[in-house]
Amino acid sequence: MRISELAERTNVPLPTLKFYVREGLLRGRTTAPNQAVYDERHVDRVRLIGALTGAAAMSLAQARAVLEVLDDGVDPVAAMGRAVATMTPATDDPVTHSGEARRLGIQVPEDYPAVQQLDAAAAAVQAAGLPWNEEIAARYIAPLRQLAAAELMPLSDMDRGEAVAYAVLGTALYEPVILALRRLLHAELVIGGDAPTAT
Amino acid sequence: MRISELAERTNVPLPTLKFYVREGLLRGRTTAPNQAVYDERHVDRVRLIGALTGAAAMSLAQARAVLEVLDDGVDPVAAMGRAVATMTPATDDPVTHSGEARRLGIQVPEDYPAVQQLDAAAAAVQAAGLPWNEEIAARYIAPLRQLAAAELMPLSDMDRGEAVAYAVLGTALYEPVILALRRLLHAELVIGGDAPTAT
Repeated sequence: MRISELAERTNVPLPTLKFYVREGLLRGRTTAPNQAVYDERHVDRVRLIGALTGAAAMSLAQARAVLEVLDDGVDPVAAMGRAVATMTPATDDPVTHSGEARRLGIQVPEDYPAVQQLDAAAAAVQAAGLPWNEEIAARYIAPLRQLAAAELMPLSDMDRGEAVAYAVLGTALYEPVILALRRLLHAELVIGGDAPTAT
Repeated sequence: MRISELAERTNVPLPTLKFYVREGLLRGRTTAPNQAVYDERHVDRVRLIGALTGAAAMSLAQARAVLEVLDDGVDPVAAMGRAVATMTPATDDPVTHSGEARRLGIQVPEDYPAVQQLDAAAAAVQAAGLPWNEEIAARYIAPLRQLAAAELMPLSDMDRGEAVAYAVLGTALYEPVILALRRLLHAELVIGGDAPTAT
């Protein structure tokens, strides 16, 4: 299909699609100079770009980096590491290296991007006067380890391409789901006044 | 202490503190026209502003709204609701009202801000071609309900002021902790190649 049909199919305005093409996010199959055709995979691609820059609130540069990881077709583990590095906001504070991950017994390489992210997050919690120690960290780690394991489970049934897409996109796109659910479950617990239940 | 001493104590530059005062985020006790004094509570306040605008990545307007909720001294439940409303990004897409929370059996008022946030997040997951259904949602809800309950536990031992601060600030400032831990635990599981363990 032509780019104008792609616009109709996806409900994304033509100028936006042309912008994606100019920015290298979307690339059709060239049939003649200045002529490209698109297929179903491009419909998916356009939806994906919308999800990344919309609800996942990524900048265009972050979305491009994530799409590049997807296109590279490296293995899911490497892809996930690179995606995490892409999405981790560069911190203003280069001195926060408190080694929380190691202290809490989480077995990851020292230079894994989220190591620094956890240190910065823990520093902010403490700066705000909120409690942070190993006991409190354990409250988070136990259920999140369960959640992380459940999230990785489907990987074993996927082929390589699917696994890379799930690892890269899932890292970003289930985050808003998690944050919204946590807020809802707080509200439910507080409004209901129930005793904590672990379903 | 004078504002210059507050700058020394907090390691925040004097112009930044004056900016906070102008913006209404920080207010000393007025002793004479154009003269205000500060005490230990203001040291905490400055750290708090730094945490909100730093690691919690809030805009100045969001930080101000959160501080207003804190200053109001309403009850923790109302405070948490208002804080969540403040922090929920206005969505570009006003048509996403899929009623996920109700469908998933989460008992909260329809107009609770995170209800719309969950609908938008679920829509983005689906737009990216990632799986979303009740079974997958349950993978998230079970551990997050456990986490939410553990987070609310300390509230019962706090006085009202502490409880409001914990509810409002905790909602925002433990979010980056959760996201960083999830990424670390993914990496640990994938790198370690262990079978999922729920500690």
